[in-house]
Amino acid sequence: MTTAAGVQQASPLAIIAGGGSVPVAVAQAVERSGRRVVLFPVRGWADPAAVEKFTHHWLALAQAGRFLRLARAEGCRDIVFVGTALRPPFRSLRMDWLTLRLLPRILRAYRGGDDHLLSSIARGFEDYGFRVLGAHEVAPEILMPEGPIGSLRPSERDQADIARALALLTATGPFDIGQAAVVAENHVLAVEAAEGTDAMLRRIADLRAAGRIAAPSGTGVLVKAPKPQQDRRFDLPAIGPRTVDETARAGLAGIAVVAGGSIVAEPAALATAADKAKIFVVGINTGRLT
Amino acid sequence: MTTAAGVQQASPLAIIAGGGSVPVAVAQAVERSGRRVVLFPVRGWADPAAVEKFTHHWLALAQAGRFLRLARAEGCRDIVFVGTALRPPFRSLRMDWLTLRLLPRILRAYRGGDDHLLSSIARGFEDYGFRVLGAHEVAPEILMPEGPIGSLRPSERDQADIARALALLTATGPFDIGQAAVVAENHVLAVEAAEGTDAMLRRIADLRAAGRIAAPSGTGVLVKAPKPQQDRRFDLPAIGPRTVDETARAGLAGIAVVAGGSIVAEPAALATAADKAKIFVVGINTGRLT
Repeated sequence: MTTAAGVQQASPLAIIAGGGSVPVAVAQAVERSGRRVVLFPVRGWADPAAVEKFTHHWLALAQAGRFLRLARAEGCRDIVFVGTALRPPFRSLRMDWLTLRLLPRILRAYRGGDDHLLSSIARGFEDYGFRVLGAHEVAPEILMPEGPIGSLRPSERDQADIARALALLTATGPFDIGQAAVVAENHVLAVEAAEGTDAMLRRIADLRAAGRIAAPSGTGVLVKAPKPQQDRRFDLPAIGPRTVDETARAGLAGIAVVAGGSIVAEPAALATAADKAKIFVVGINTGRLT
Repeated sequence: MTTAAGVQQASPLAIIAGGGSVPVAVAQAVERSGRRVVLFPVRGWADPAAVEKFTHHWLALAQAGRFLRLARAEGCRDIVFVGTALRPPFRSLRMDWLTLRLLPRILRAYRGGDDHLLSSIARGFEDYGFRVLGAHEVAPEILMPEGPIGSLRPSERDQADIARALALLTATGPFDIGQAAVVAENHVLAVEAAEGTDAMLRRIADLRAAGRIAAPSGTGVLVKAPKPQQDRRFDLPAIGPRTVDETARAGLAGIAVVAGGSIVAEPAALATAADKAKIFVVGINTGRLT
């Protein structure tokens, strides 16, 4: 049986799960749609308590062969990669046979950005008969809707900051850089690269505490957007209650993410957190991107 | 008497001095050229010991009127702004009469980037009969020369990283963002914004210590470039022995700056520091920018 999106409903879905709350949200959404899931949580990234409710098999990094064997035994044909991942030091990986076999292509990709690395691993799995899907293809309800979540909305000044940040992220897109920036009163305060969004927000909080930011507390926006040429099956920007807390701690007015191009795992929890923190969270229709 | 660069040699040069070693290097170079200097060190930024050797008058921030009176009494016509500055919280400034008079234009500029703020203050001084020059116009020997300083040179891989960082800085130029980025093995590790170069380099050191950077120690380049539309009288990127130390601590291979578009206050000290830290420091001829 095949849906409009081309998803084979008959086989259980293999979810290779990193950290954060998104993998479980995806697994629940897929189960609600009537499809069975098998989780493959990655040791050191995924939360053990969260995966307990699902059929699961732990993987260490670089255990492509173990995954292949277990996924076949479970009857899986489709794979989704979802959740946060830390880029490990290459020399720390203990590779199994399939990983070694995929190594030349992984090494070539490792010199490029993360996108190329994941796309490359996906092509490797596809050579072995699997299909790699995006989380948003199997659980479209996890995508950020257009408009505000929670009760606050961006002011005109916030909207100008959002536009500037989106223009900046479009300019940096070709460089396979981070997916977020902070702009306050037209001034670019931070651009995310290898450090990740949370660390970038903590930097803003520190600069503000040191009196190094001219814009007053309660101004400025965290903006997240997918990279222009990103393979959308991987690493769509995600926000959650923790992003809301870090944004409030950084003294910003709110968060803007691209509607349909960002994952919001728990919209109800996010709305509650945003209202409590007195910040806005808004999905932007960028036209080009959605 | 007027030189080719249009500098009026007859009047002493007023140097409004921020932090770091560059103001003194400029003052010494100007004195070597036979012109008298009067330093106006800014309290909290300039180093008291360093300015002792020169005629000087301390300024607090927002004391444009005091500066005007003293500079006129000293017979100064030309002004140079040089040295590092921290952007103060606006509400902490205690403004004198001229600063208040310039305030509407300063406030308008404050919403833009630092460039606009300084250009705006410069126009204010020009309204009062002064001429604002760039440090490189009065002391061209402080500009970075083309080629390596010290004995190491960038490898081919380093040169590819330098090219990628320069392309990135060209893309971010229109956003009046920081003037530096770190690229290692084609991967953008950090982009500077409000935090400054030293803080960005410390971030790389932290990420490396946490095993979050795939490129091995001894790869990667710090690249600094002036912003494309920058008013070159202000805030040309500067490097010194401390930049070298932070770069080495971040585990990078070296530093590349735009030749003729960056200030290197003490080339001999920099060469010694670079050789000791086993990193390269190179001036790049970017064609377009020099």
